[in-house]
Amino acid sequence: MSALIYCPFPDAESARNVGEQLLDEGLIGCINIGGPIQSFFAWGGERGEGEECPALLKTDAQLLELAISRLEELHPYDSPAVLGWPCVAGKATESWLRTLGGGGSVRH
Amino acid sequence: MSALIYCPFPDAESARNVGEQLLDEGLIGCINIGGPIQSFFAWGGERGEGEECPALLKTDAQLLELAISRLEELHPYDSPAVLGWPCVAGKATESWLRTLGGGGSVRH
Amino acid sequence: MSALIYCPFPDAESARNVGEQLLDEGLIGCINIGGPIQSFFAWGGERGEGEECPALLKTDAQLLELAISRLEELHPYDSPAVLGWPCVAGKATESWLRTLGGGGSVRH
Repeated sequence: MSALIYCPFPDAESARNVGEQLLDEGLIGCINIGGPIQSFFAWGGERGEGEECPALLKTDAQLLELAISRLEELHPYDSPAVLGWPCVAGKATESWLRTLGGGGSVRH
Repeated sequence: MSALIYCPFPDAESARNVGEQLLDEGLIGCINIGGPIQSFFAWGGERGEGEECPALLKTDAQLLELAISRLEELHPYDSPAVLGWPCVAGKATESWLRTLGGGGSVRH
Repeated sequence: MSALIYCPFPDAESARNVGEQLLDEGLIGCINIGGPIQSFFAWGGERGEGEECPALLKTDAQLLELAISRLEELHPYDSPAVLGWPCVAGKATESWLRTLGGGGSVRH
């Protein structure tokens, strides 16, 4: 199985920097960075809002917990929102992402 | 575990209104509202299309069914599309969202 | 249960074309096509980047594997990224998408 991870960043540049690092480490195969989103949240008993930049990262299901943990470390927020889940993938996606983490070459 | 809910709204204002209500009720910790999307659908044997505004809501997995049910009630459409799923979350996300629904303070 | 499928396309037009075909075949109930995203990826041992157009498709969980497989065939890329997962849906969504694949009428 493959997996997706959703994570909002403060801006596209920080999303790209963290994504490139995770690509370097073989923990993801791809990061998709979207246009701005508006966030409304409850945190520490208070309400807040802000503009963020959403990212969706693709990996192998076996790497899901490791990739989430490393993403949380690299993220510019102290307490980033990082949520991932296993997925059924198409054949090409499955074989591409399965090569991650094994030191092998990766395919798009 | 944590959870995500995906739901398109007619516009950002209605997404924000429903999101703020769900925050007030402690059923979600955050709503992310994105830029416009194009929708093409089949409904009641006919085809349609339109512009919508996507929202992604974060909650605790234990609140998933309740949050979906309440979102469906509050949504301006008669038959809104509301789909949610449990997620593996980073440590900060997990502990933030776990405080929901228990009457405790919530953290971002 | 219902399901979502995430798939980036080269542009909104190709996403729409494939989405309309899957609607024609009764394999999905809806496609949501978003604004442009930036993609950074590792593929075949090399790194790449590009602009893509994200799509999120809604279907019944029983059709998930079939819809993924058909989407992979129809997609303009040789090796598209196609990832789907089962979802808990609101009542209206559940009954709408359950009509897919059975030859019955579909509701939004």
